[in-house]
Amino acid sequence: MSDTLRLGIAGLGTVGVGVLRIIRQQAALLEARTGRKISVSAVSARTRDRDRGVSLKGYDWEDDPVTLATRDDVDVFVELMGGSDGPAKAATEAALKAGKHVVTANKAMLAIHGQALAELAEAQGLSLRYEAAVAGGIPVVKTLLEGLAGNGITRVMGVMNGSCNYILTRMESAGQTYQDIFAEADALGYLEADPQLDVGGIDAAHKLAILSSIAFGAQVDFHGIQLEGIERVTIEDIRAAADMGYKIKLLGVAQKTGRGLEQRMQPCLVPDSSPLGQLDGGTNMVVLEGDAVGQIVLRGAGAGEGPTASAVMADVCDIARGVWLPVFGQPATTLVQAKSAQSKTPAPYYLRMALVDKPGALAKIATVLGEAGVSINRMRQYEHDAASAPVLIVTHRTIPADLERAIAAMDGTGVMAGAPVALRIEEV
Amino acid sequence: MSDTLRLGIAGLGTVGVGVLRIIRQQAALLEARTGRKISVSAVSARTRDRDRGVSLKGYDWEDDPVTLATRDDVDVFVELMGGSDGPAKAATEAALKAGKHVVTANKAMLAIHGQALAELAEAQGLSLRYEAAVAGGIPVVKTLLEGLAGNGITRVMGVMNGSCNYILTRMESAGQTYQDIFAEADALGYLEADPQLDVGGIDAAHKLAILSSIAFGAQVDFHGIQLEGIERVTIEDIRAAADMGYKIKLLGVAQKTGRGLEQRMQPCLVPDSSPLGQLDGGTNMVVLEGDAVGQIVLRGAGAGEGPTASAVMADVCDIARGVWLPVFGQPATTLVQAKSAQSKTPAPYYLRMALVDKPGALAKIATVLGEAGVSINRMRQYEHDAASAPVLIVTHRTIPADLERAIAAMDGTGVMAGAPVALRIEEV
Repeated sequence: MSDTLRLGIAGLGTVGVGVLRIIRQQAALLEARTGRKISVSAVSARTRDRDRGVSLKGYDWEDDPVTLATRDDVDVFVELMGGSDGPAKAATEAALKAGKHVVTANKAMLAIHGQALAELAEAQGLSLRYEAAVAGGIPVVKTLLEGLAGNGITRVMGVMNGSCNYILTRMESAGQTYQDIFAEADALGYLEADPQLDVGGIDAAHKLAILSSIAFGAQVDFHGIQLEGIERVTIEDIRAAADMGYKIKLLGVAQKTGRGLEQRMQPCLVPDSSPLGQLDGGTNMVVLEGDAVGQIVLRGAGAGEGPTASAVMADVCDIARGVWLPVFGQPATTLVQAKSAQSKTPAPYYLRMALVDKPGALAKIATVLGEAGVSINRMRQYEHDAASAPVLIVTHRTIPADLERAIAAMDGTGVMAGAPVALRIEEV
Repeated sequence: MSDTLRLGIAGLGTVGVGVLRIIRQQAALLEARTGRKISVSAVSARTRDRDRGVSLKGYDWEDDPVTLATRDDVDVFVELMGGSDGPAKAATEAALKAGKHVVTANKAMLAIHGQALAELAEAQGLSLRYEAAVAGGIPVVKTLLEGLAGNGITRVMGVMNGSCNYILTRMESAGQTYQDIFAEADALGYLEADPQLDVGGIDAAHKLAILSSIAFGAQVDFHGIQLEGIERVTIEDIRAAADMGYKIKLLGVAQKTGRGLEQRMQPCLVPDSSPLGQLDGGTNMVVLEGDAVGQIVLRGAGAGEGPTASAVMADVCDIARGVWLPVFGQPATTLVQAKSAQSKTPAPYYLRMALVDKPGALAKIATVLGEAGVSINRMRQYEHDAASAPVLIVTHRTIPADLERAIAAMDGTGVMAGAPVALRIEEV
């Protein structure tokens, strides 16, 4: 265990630079904790001559990440390029085939190709670790894989895209529209080059798919996620939800049901006094529920140089210490292909609608809801000047199909001024 | 790795029963995750014939935990008896000397004898694991030991005694005195047989000493903790703190300073909007700060059958998976004996006092504070009928010695109606 552990790092963006910084500045600490020196043999990135604020002196340069990944003097290939396919996947596969451990921050690659990569790594007896792929600096992968290994996991929830949470909390505090705050976030550089990865919920869904696999012993199934972004969240709904005691969050939820594995990433209401409701700005939060442990909440920075590099280094330290685990917590060949269940789990719902201002309008809506089996928990009609009256309803637990039936029937009542908004209220 | 891992469990209280339940009910899951069967060879407890709600059939019985710990058919000794010395320590030492791994929930034993036990375990190449000793079900030991291994840890904070947090939050919600709520908690069975372990802060301080050791690479130093319990917290202070935007918590703080390792367990004020401030009832919260990761917050149940058993089983699973780590994260022989620094770190302070109702009283106090170098941030004098006027002061960051000097000088002003209350405000 006293040999030096030698890394090859592909990708020198924010995270790669952060990893180099830790390896240099904490050399003594890392050696004390792992019993080994940790060194960098070679690096690779798209452009060689760029001021990254950190010197690359002492590291060999490789133009081709595949060549880097398979060098004789590399024990661990650190993949920080990103992208589900292309060079990241090619170099990861090459590294594993060449007998190198892999540490990656690549959520897209794992969400799409996790099963095949895990099988490859395990067949080779190698580590494939990815703490940095989910929720940045929060050690949630380790917590699920190891810390809660004695639990049957019942539900995993999380706010795992800081940009979306920033937009939603900033809409509320500034009282501005989605379009305005989106533009502001984009100008501040908070969004991915393709912002749809953030606001469309795709990035967060990648993370949820990975956590689901660990939690439920299932093959990663990104395409089984019921996915909706935050583009349709309005300032009106944020205000109305607040008035009823809720916050709107882009919330990922995975739970095993009698019908299969339910995975959702969608705007949901959560109580404003809950830890999730109190999560402002770019911070991430993951809630893990186990049959023995109850509820564990983890909160921390979901992105950024230091936090993400911290997660990469946790994986590197584990490998240096000789820790080996199956990639998703149990051998990949034993992971089941879970049946994907679209949400049939009953939940309370938030309904916002505008009713034509004439006698009996509210009664008609209440009747339609009742006939569909949707029971009203709370209802508010607001004072208004316009021709239509704003109405908010919080339902009791409702089967989604019943709600859909009720909404379809509302259309025929003749008292709706526009389509209603329906959002799930997640019971946290 | 496919051999059965055989446990010997000493102590069949709540936690021991929880461990037996998990081992039975989750046998398939545990085998899938660790690649091994996990079995129980023998158990031991103070009384044999007691209805524990779980059958002991199939397990050998031992009257003597030392005999249990050294049985040939025990690979891991699970110590759930408690107590820093006595049978728990004897059996733990015997187990390690006999080549058995040890998993324990015993915070007192580790806080007092952690260094010697760690040296013994490491000399034998054995695991000594104790996730359940700190903050119940929250995997905070694993997070510090492994998840943040790439960080220089800068501060560890925590609310780690659920009974104290219950008493403090219940005093506020019920508007009742410490004495009343203490009696209520005692009647509900929320307190240890010796309640001083809870309300005196000793139990929480044991946990803090353990986390400090991991965080700062120092030998466990329970006696270096500046310790104060919650007995002197009054309903008046809880109300006054709330009025200034704070909650009072029994907060453990460990940080490395230029003068040594500062460890405090004392009632502190934290902002009511912070995660710590929002922590109500019996839940635990640990805040870990690292130079790379920033701030990580972990929240969960700090006690109880399921949560504590979950933590025990995480350690058992690690051992089953062949994971080995130094007990406190780096070899025990390399842990430094940190100089214990009583708090000299400046902090804002909360001061509550009653002033004699005569002209110039407030001016005298302000003068005394200013002369001692204590700067006032906020001050409130409340309307009053009595002969003395209630005054609250929040100071700017103050060196504790300056504050002590100011408080001593107040006594000579002739305007104080009784001694002032001073509480540290922890900046979270």
